[in-house]
Amino acid sequence: MKATLGAVRLRLGTVGTLLLCLAPMLRGQMAPDAARDYTAKHKAELLQQFSDLLSIPNVAADPANLRRNADVLREMLRKRGVDSRLLSLPGAPSVVYGQISVPGAQHTIVFYAHYDGQPVTPSEWEGGSPFTPVVREVDGARRIYARSAGDDKAAIFAQLTALDALREAHIPLKANIRFVWEGEEEAGSPHLEQILDANRDLIHGDVWLVCDGPVDQSGKQTVVFGARGDTHLQITLYGPHHGLHSGHYGNWAPNPAMMLAQLLAGMKDENGRVLVPHFYDGIAPLSAIEKEALAKAPVNDTMLMKAFWLGHTDGSGAHLLELINQPSLNINGLSSGQTGAKAANVIPPTATADIDLRLVVGIDWREQQQRVIDFIRSRGYFIVESEPSRETLLAHSRVARVVRDPASYNAVRTPMDLPIAQEVIRAVEQARGEVVLLPTMGGSVPLGAMERAARTHTITVPIANYDDNQHAANENLRLQNLWDGVGTMAALLEMQ
Amino acid sequence: MKATLGAVRLRLGTVGTLLLCLAPMLRGQMAPDAARDYTAKHKAELLQQFSDLLSIPNVAADPANLRRNADVLREMLRKRGVDSRLLSLPGAPSVVYGQISVPGAQHTIVFYAHYDGQPVTPSEWEGGSPFTPVVREVDGARRIYARSAGDDKAAIFAQLTALDALREAHIPLKANIRFVWEGEEEAGSPHLEQILDANRDLIHGDVWLVCDGPVDQSGKQTVVFGARGDTHLQITLYGPHHGLHSGHYGNWAPNPAMMLAQLLAGMKDENGRVLVPHFYDGIAPLSAIEKEALAKAPVNDTMLMKAFWLGHTDGSGAHLLELINQPSLNINGLSSGQTGAKAANVIPPTATADIDLRLVVGIDWREQQQRVIDFIRSRGYFIVESEPSRETLLAHSRVARVVRDPASYNAVRTPMDLPIAQEVIRAVEQARGEVVLLPTMGGSVPLGAMERAARTHTITVPIANYDDNQHAANENLRLQNLWDGVGTMAALLEMQ
Repeated sequence: MKATLGAVRLRLGTVGTLLLCLAPMLRGQMAPDAARDYTAKHKAELLQQFSDLLSIPNVAADPANLRRNADVLREMLRKRGVDSRLLSLPGAPSVVYGQISVPGAQHTIVFYAHYDGQPVTPSEWEGGSPFTPVVREVDGARRIYARSAGDDKAAIFAQLTALDALREAHIPLKANIRFVWEGEEEAGSPHLEQILDANRDLIHGDVWLVCDGPVDQSGKQTVVFGARGDTHLQITLYGPHHGLHSGHYGNWAPNPAMMLAQLLAGMKDENGRVLVPHFYDGIAPLSAIEKEALAKAPVNDTMLMKAFWLGHTDGSGAHLLELINQPSLNINGLSSGQTGAKAANVIPPTATADIDLRLVVGIDWREQQQRVIDFIRSRGYFIVESEPSRETLLAHSRVARVVRDPASYNAVRTPMDLPIAQEVIRAVEQARGEVVLLPTMGGSVPLGAMERAARTHTITVPIANYDDNQHAANENLRLQNLWDGVGTMAALLEMQ
Repeated sequence: MKATLGAVRLRLGTVGTLLLCLAPMLRGQMAPDAARDYTAKHKAELLQQFSDLLSIPNVAADPANLRRNADVLREMLRKRGVDSRLLSLPGAPSVVYGQISVPGAQHTIVFYAHYDGQPVTPSEWEGGSPFTPVVREVDGARRIYARSAGDDKAAIFAQLTALDALREAHIPLKANIRFVWEGEEEAGSPHLEQILDANRDLIHGDVWLVCDGPVDQSGKQTVVFGARGDTHLQITLYGPHHGLHSGHYGNWAPNPAMMLAQLLAGMKDENGRVLVPHFYDGIAPLSAIEKEALAKAPVNDTMLMKAFWLGHTDGSGAHLLELINQPSLNINGLSSGQTGAKAANVIPPTATADIDLRLVVGIDWREQQQRVIDFIRSRGYFIVESEPSRETLLAHSRVARVVRDPASYNAVRTPMDLPIAQEVIRAVEQARGEVVLLPTMGGSVPLGAMERAARTHTITVPIANYDDNQHAANENLRLQNLWDGVGTMAALLEMQ
């Protein structure tokens, strides 16, 4: 039974299973080929199943539907004979957990993905509904449009489909397999570490494969050895207690939108270099092997500028791949008063900016928050954490409310030369040919929480196309990326 | 018939009218006293009538209801026997016009007000509805809350009520009276001059009394001899064509919110002084009499800072009244991406600011727009007026779309020592005692259009309380200001 598909197989009669198991070994079919055959044969049916999964709304503001996602995923595991359960904490979306134990297996491989999606503004979506998946052809390639099509239900669906493909081809699993599918990654994974900690025995593995994010913009398969950390601050500045007539008080009553512009403008120079003191202090330098990998990676900048309609880029000429190895400060949103048809001649009472800070190894998120807060203070602001009272506003010439995001985490980087890293690279190359190796991805995944709780390393194997509008309206997945992803997952599932 | 209430009286039988008209002359009652008696006697009924008028929505986005306002006002004039009509142009809200011709009158006095209101965001209003008037007591004084309670239906209602009060007290009018009530003042009066030009014979007068804006913050009655001009620009900057993941592209893809912050921050120093080159060039200096009036006016700055919860003011220590005699640059609104619960980790595709530029005598609005646009260009932006194409965005490192508001107008100032100015001051003093004389109000009224079309001077006599939340949510009018306003209007209606 050693060479069977673990727990899945155990449900079949022993004799039948043994016979079935001999077939692929005799044919010698490889996992990626089996996956290709399987997806080619079942394409329409798979697309329908994926579409059904994408139809279940999965935003943090809608916990009932998040729970529905978890239940459906658990059922999908159960149907495949995978021992599954929900790992839960009160007030947090559950982690969907599945395990396949292969008797005699030497290793355990954990597949991480997440089933929740970024918040949506339906009016910004073509068709108006992020949860009614639509297939459209773009430049000759078919794509499916829905929230989480790329980030990150694609990975979950590819893993499930890879299991089916291996089973249909009677290719046995060799290692124990664990699935850990999170439900609040887009909210910063505030409970992941606690949930994992409470279930250490379940989630320990020789490696955590993090299946999230996009492949290289060139379309080449990527293996990534880390991710930037992420934290947020919300900054609100105060003008008059209520909107004032801009004629009667303009020039005299301070305008919080202008104050915010001045504050934010001081945080970066015109090339995008962050001016907050100490912002770049402590960065752990790249190793020789990481630098070499980076030097070999495709430079897609010119293509990307055209794709994104960009007339210039930040970074004083540095390439994208160099720049994502630096910490960043990004304004996610600005609001003050009204613009457009609703704009009125007022001095608005408040102005707010939401910013995210991406982190690299060597910089702690609390420290980076504090550096920005210290900068705000250095510009003459009295800092408060909750809505300031009249007394507070009158007692200080300038008041800033700064809300720190507690659901933050640090960057992580796994050395590329670990034996397990080399094995993962080989498996992915088996499925996809030459791969692009990157020290870090620009996006963030709570790798640190996983590494601490599971006491292991993480390696990221993404499958989505880079232009999947992840985190924005009209998120999508190139269907070919899904089919390729099934092959990649099959190769990884089959690892020793 | 000479000494009767003009056209209103003409409808009564001649003998009865003559008898009625003798009474006030015999009693010698003054117009402000008559107004006080009248409002005291009819308070509840007047409040109901005012509330009914405020219930009719009056925003530019709702032309059907703007038309209803015009029809109702015309009917209110008609009921009072005032010869009334709508002065219209296709596509523009009508001017409601009324005239009372007093046989043998030497002068004609034109009362201007406007019946439209600023745009509303109902969710920002206590109770959620700007058009369901509510009376609340604030610090011992009753106020009525609704859009246009202060700006500017109060003035219209005070004029109508003053007419009634004079009639009830049998006080005759001495001058011809004209009412010109506009329906798109809050949209910048784009058609007013054209409408007035087409009706020059109707609207000519010895003086236009502009009944708009608030009285001095001290509560003292104010007579104002000018208003700042006003123009707007909408500035949109461009980042990536669609929202990009801030992790994968942060540090590399330019963030339009940060670009906008940097652009706007360069427009003002930290004391609110505008840094746009030539912004203050050409200002016509105040005359000796204007400076003297300004020096006598109350300084309310400390009281206002407390009322508005302000910990500092712009202007390097200059008083509000000095500062509103300067041009201003105010951000009405900022928007980019989303803030708060909807904030996502994106680099937003665009960032927009709506700004208004207040003007003083000596600076033309087109010139002031151009100065700001030249500044934007000097910061490296290629300027377009409509949505830029992909080609345009790729061809220029930075692109700004700047939309100029065509409905703009210049500042106007009437010399305080003109004979008609002195007469107006005397009439208002008769009603309200000592008055505050100001060279200009901070807010804007299209006085220039009136002066050009009517070939006359304008003098502004406001009645609203300063803290009426004009242009913002929870607009209101202190009821005492309404009753006082009826007295002021009665005194002005009775002018020679």
